[in-house]
Amino acid sequence: MYYGIDIGGTTAKIGAFKNDKLVDSWVVSTQVESLEKLVKTILDSIRAKDKNILALGIDCPGFIVNNKISSSANLHFLDGVDLKEAFEKEINCKVRVINDANCHALGEAKHAHLDNIVFVALGTGVGGGFVLNGQVLEGVNGAGMEVGHMHVDDVFNFRCGCGQVGCLETLCGQKGVRNLVNHFRNNYQTKLEIDYSVKDVFDLAKANDPLAFKVFEIFTDKLGLALANLAAILNPQAIIIGGGISLAGDFLIRHVKANFEKYATPVVRNTEIRLASLGSEAGMYGAYYLVKEENK
Amino acid sequence: MYYGIDIGGTTAKIGAFKNDKLVDSWVVSTQVESLEKLVKTILDSIRAKDKNILALGIDCPGFIVNNKISSSANLHFLDGVDLKEAFEKEINCKVRVINDANCHALGEAKHAHLDNIVFVALGTGVGGGFVLNGQVLEGVNGAGMEVGHMHVDDVFNFRCGCGQVGCLETLCGQKGVRNLVNHFRNNYQTKLEIDYSVKDVFDLAKANDPLAFKVFEIFTDKLGLALANLAAILNPQAIIIGGGISLAGDFLIRHVKANFEKYATPVVRNTEIRLASLGSEAGMYGAYYLVKEENK
Repeated sequence: MYYGIDIGGTTAKIGAFKNDKLVDSWVVSTQVESLEKLVKTILDSIRAKDKNILALGIDCPGFIVNNKISSSANLHFLDGVDLKEAFEKEINCKVRVINDANCHALGEAKHAHLDNIVFVALGTGVGGGFVLNGQVLEGVNGAGMEVGHMHVDDVFNFRCGCGQVGCLETLCGQKGVRNLVNHFRNNYQTKLEIDYSVKDVFDLAKANDPLAFKVFEIFTDKLGLALANLAAILNPQAIIIGGGISLAGDFLIRHVKANFEKYATPVVRNTEIRLASLGSEAGMYGAYYLVKEENK
Repeated sequence: MYYGIDIGGTTAKIGAFKNDKLVDSWVVSTQVESLEKLVKTILDSIRAKDKNILALGIDCPGFIVNNKISSSANLHFLDGVDLKEAFEKEINCKVRVINDANCHALGEAKHAHLDNIVFVALGTGVGGGFVLNGQVLEGVNGAGMEVGHMHVDDVFNFRCGCGQVGCLETLCGQKGVRNLVNHFRNNYQTKLEIDYSVKDVFDLAKANDPLAFKVFEIFTDKLGLALANLAAILNPQAIIIGGGISLAGDFLIRHVKANFEKYATPVVRNTEIRLASLGSEAGMYGAYYLVKEENK
């Protein structure tokens, strides 16, 4: 069988595919101490079910070019590792490794039957991927589509995890929402509790809570700006918004679209902006499609 | 022989190539009234020299996908035309048509022996092209790399030719320089005469003329910002700056680089920024390479 494996900081999702359909999936822990243990954990769990493993598509966080991870944000034992090589030492099958956001982009593109899409993931930070003629843009340092690190702000100057100020993800994504809530909390009335989620902020924004709406306004304005610039550069068929925050759904998309149209040059203004459809399965699907397409 | 033809609003440059070298070139007028006359003018001028035309690579301004021009800024009789088809009616050889800035990008990439580059042309406006694995990004509407229409400004709000405000080319390129000079002329001392070129402004900026330096400062700041965002999205091997304004050379590149580094996320901060090397021959070279590569 073909497998799509979505490696994250705490778990790896493993999906078994048949005729482009996910027919089985499970989760293993990635909180192991070494590369060897990670590979063994994943392979053991698949071998327990399948004696005929044909191919492994794998995605994980980090800067990745040609299956090699130059640096991985959460799993430091992967830094500098050729993960394809590491798997091929233990198993004789086709293996392909790719960055997670790029992989999610491919999964969403294939699932939508589109060949040219921009994917933006709104999670803790902001990630992205670009699929061009069915192929993923990796970038020469594996830094293609570092959407969260587009410079969009000269007002707040929040410090980004990358070391810069003014990056998109200092205003969008979970970290961005926290920055903005902290910044405005003393200046705007709110029903927002001390302990809150992005969903709470968006729900209150919908109900016109002054603080929550202010945060939502800046979030959607800057995201609209970034998407308009992505459209002017990449001119895709569609922009697909995924990640946990995209569960805010139509309320989010409607406001992002309005801001996109405000900033976009006319020739790309009708670019479709839509919600992702694969949810947490996008990584498994993308990794599966990647290894499948390259071995047709 | 193979030909690269660079069609502009007033003239077309025609180049004859042998073993990747431009061995002959000349210019014909494009100020004709119809598509038929344009095709005839170009073909007659080539046939007068060569009885064995093998291939024509052609670039021209406008939004172009798969050889078809949806709209052309300067040559309105090309709007809606499949220019490949129009040539193939009159000659039996390989023909390929592409947008001019995209084509210049390809010419510069091939000439630099690089497969992944961003090209930015600083002329009347600001154009661009992206070469990925040796292929040009056209965009689904032929609007790929509309670099000049990235939104970068919320302060001056100069109106752009595209209908928007805040586009990069309202501050960079020749039109941008004029906007900025007009805006600041009464507030800054200057030796700039009433009738001036961009070169005059940059020469005075070098000599610390207050008005000229202010304009140069904003120009290079916003260009640096745009290039930083292009690098975060496309992560190319190099960014190549061409167009007439790039003749300002090292003085321009040095200031653009400093601003690029101010805005760029660390993983792409070492992206090389260099001057174009083909000058006004980039279009002919790019068009030649395009038709040659696709017919190897």
